[in-house]
Amino acid sequence: MTDEFSRIARYFVPLAGEEGLGLANDAAVLKPPPGRELVLTVDQMLEGVHFLSGDDPALIARKLLRRNLSDLAAMGAVPMGYLLTTALPAGLEETWLAGFSAGLAEDQKIYGISLYGGDSSSARHDISLSATLIGHVAPGAALSRGGAAPGDEIWVTGTIGDAALGLKARFGKLADPTGYLTGRSLLPEPRVGLELAGIVSAAIDVSDGLLQDLGHICRQSGAGAVIVADDVPASKQAAAFGAAMLEARLTDGDDYELVVTVPPDRVAAFKSACGALPVTRIGHMVAGEGVEVRDRAGGVLRFGKAGWRHF
Amino acid sequence: MTDEFSRIARYFVPLAGEEGLGLANDAAVLKPPPGRELVLTVDQMLEGVHFLSGDDPALIARKLLRRNLSDLAAMGAVPMGYLLTTALPAGLEETWLAGFSAGLAEDQKIYGISLYGGDSSSARHDISLSATLIGHVAPGAALSRGGAAPGDEIWVTGTIGDAALGLKARFGKLADPTGYLTGRSLLPEPRVGLELAGIVSAAIDVSDGLLQDLGHICRQSGAGAVIVADDVPASKQAAAFGAAMLEARLTDGDDYELVVTVPPDRVAAFKSACGALPVTRIGHMVAGEGVEVRDRAGGVLRFGKAGWRHF
Repeated sequence: MTDEFSRIARYFVPLAGEEGLGLANDAAVLKPPPGRELVLTVDQMLEGVHFLSGDDPALIARKLLRRNLSDLAAMGAVPMGYLLTTALPAGLEETWLAGFSAGLAEDQKIYGISLYGGDSSSARHDISLSATLIGHVAPGAALSRGGAAPGDEIWVTGTIGDAALGLKARFGKLADPTGYLTGRSLLPEPRVGLELAGIVSAAIDVSDGLLQDLGHICRQSGAGAVIVADDVPASKQAAAFGAAMLEARLTDGDDYELVVTVPPDRVAAFKSACGALPVTRIGHMVAGEGVEVRDRAGGVLRFGKAGWRHF
Repeated sequence: MTDEFSRIARYFVPLAGEEGLGLANDAAVLKPPPGRELVLTVDQMLEGVHFLSGDDPALIARKLLRRNLSDLAAMGAVPMGYLLTTALPAGLEETWLAGFSAGLAEDQKIYGISLYGGDSSSARHDISLSATLIGHVAPGAALSRGGAAPGDEIWVTGTIGDAALGLKARFGKLADPTGYLTGRSLLPEPRVGLELAGIVSAAIDVSDGLLQDLGHICRQSGAGAVIVADDVPASKQAAAFGAAMLEARLTDGDDYELVVTVPPDRVAAFKSACGALPVTRIGHMVAGEGVEVRDRAGGVLRFGKAGWRHF
């Protein structure tokens, strides 16, 4: 590898927005959009934890941004830019960094964001990465996990469980002949750009598993949730595995779809706000606590785990 | 260790400011101070790279914040809050986290900042940490590395080289009977709170070594620097090692003092802005490029390395 400053000049300066001041200062300077609040989030991706050694660096870069973009989407924020940390082990080829920065560039274009600044370091063992994403939202309009009330309907975007099955496919535990499931695991689609303020009563993105993430809405809202397992939308590829993969689909994470609660009288507005994006009602909020999963006949299904947690 | 969510509730929620929304959402929401620009910076601290295994976790936490606070200081920004990432290996004792969060709490109080949000993960090998610091500055008042002109005087705050010698002391390479040098390495004092806008023409903090960091000012300003080695202020403890440690003092980093350039007619204003903080003139800017170090007689001193770089 070339040295730290040459690498910054070559791979990161071209990604920098005006706020980054050419990456030639100690920090970035951001003029906040007038009359808006800022939304700030950070997520890491670590080799051996969030991605596998040897994964395509462009896809690692894009997933790093997209996981954070999904957090902004769950708050109803418009993304603007990001700060980045990289810690790279000595043996890494410079082609890795070329691929990584190309992935960043690609998603910067798609999501209209730019690099504000960052920090690069050497690492002893594993690649470790983080991104801090900054977005904006109208005053008071940030979505939260805490506003759901009994009677609200529970809706999800897209399909749930593809990424969990995609990860299994990557480990050879199931077949994914078209690569669709694997693709959903490697390159999620954050649901940014929906105008859900004043429509949904609570929102979260599915990053640790549907049941666990919906459980956060329950806890923060002081309410319970009842969902019907068969109503949780599956892609054609995931549906092919049937009930055998139900638990994985509901409890493993990484879908980066949104789960929202919607008061019944705003369901039409919700659907309209989602436009062409498929959305599916999977249940409703109730008085009480926790998430109950039922089969079509009303029987309660129990699962061995709630969702992904780091020890 | 208890599980991820219990740890967040126990160690991090008490540190959260209003912007953190109780750490119970996908992101933080910040109302930017009216009429101010935001200054954003991120820095990592990795086990085995930026700190040693077994180091006091409270000091690691405080240095993580202070390295970032120093970047804000170099931009002339007032610190407000931060986002944090932690990646911790499975074997780590929970007492580590208790000490780490206690260190954060202590410096939050000293610097008037609060936790906005973060991300916690497991790690395969080493502890890895990062903090994104957010501050504010009057419009257009952010300091930069790029404004120095020939004739400007070069000044530094505090003393230079203590941290480099402190690190050597930690490895048993030199004696530090009072622990002063070691302390300067473990717990730097970022020079936040100085009102230098409109007074200094360029600024940077010493994080990679005086010569290299001053070199950044030269490069960004399109000018050169001449400094006199004997004028670079040393603490009593560092001065005791004499010329033998001169190169280490000038080329190793981690002092987190400020290096600034000051037009001659603003030197009085500069001193006044620094109040009781000791400041020392070490040289002046010239036409040309790069940093030249001279002895008192005007002879040019050459060193084997410029400063710290990650490979």
